[in-house]
Amino acid sequence: MAFDPATLKFNDQGLVPVIAQAEGTGEVLMLAWMNAAAITRTLETGRVTYWSRSRQAFWVKGESSGHTQELVDLRVDCDRDCLLAIVQQTGPACHTNRRSCFYTSVTGEEERELMAPMVE
Amino acid sequence: MAFDPATLKFNDQGLVPVIAQAEGTGEVLMLAWMNAAAITRTLETGRVTYWSRSRQAFWVKGESSGHTQELVDLRVDCDRDCLLAIVQQTGPACHTNRRSCFYTSVTGEEERELMAPMVE
Repeated sequence: MAFDPATLKFNDQGLVPVIAQAEGTGEVLMLAWMNAAAITRTLETGRVTYWSRSRQAFWVKGESSGHTQELVDLRVDCDRDCLLAIVQQTGPACHTNRRSCFYTSVTGEEERELMAPMVE
Repeated sequence: MAFDPATLKFNDQGLVPVIAQAEGTGEVLMLAWMNAAAITRTLETGRVTYWSRSRQAFWVKGESSGHTQELVDLRVDCDRDCLLAIVQQTGPACHTNRRSCFYTSVTGEEERELMAPMVE
């Protein structure tokens, strides 16, 4: 059947979490949120578009920074309450200019940074 | 500094989303939730322990199924409101017996299953 975003289980704010993963490397880049309209926009445009909880507005990833995410594949999980976006990431995904937002390991005795900001 | 779960930004239910990723393959396996106590248990035991929102109880992954997740590394994102757990997954991560919960692609004209249940 064709995918209908209305079949997802949204939280009480009408959102689902979306994991962005880099095609090829498999690196997990970030987690953000989409509402049904953002999912539709993402699928229609091929440009990953989140819903900004702080701004309460669509957030076309990279629109101001140029660090866009082109959609390669969108996957839904077994519970239909979470999405995985496989993307072609241009430049860093993180606002700190690191490739991934998950650059800090907390399993050692001290927090440890795993990657430096990218130089453009 | 040593990691203190209290420094995370939990949602209004006291939870943060946790992405589980397979060491080696980089496959994204699932997304679940932890509260501060589940994070502490995960770090202390090395056995990934979520908080079950449906049961309102600790959920030691694989405790009943045997499909455990051994923690390799735990990472926090730039906003400190999401975790990435790198794990050694035993057997399938998904309750449907698939390796990953994200086995359904929704980008085509129809939803499409990308992997079959594992045979044990």
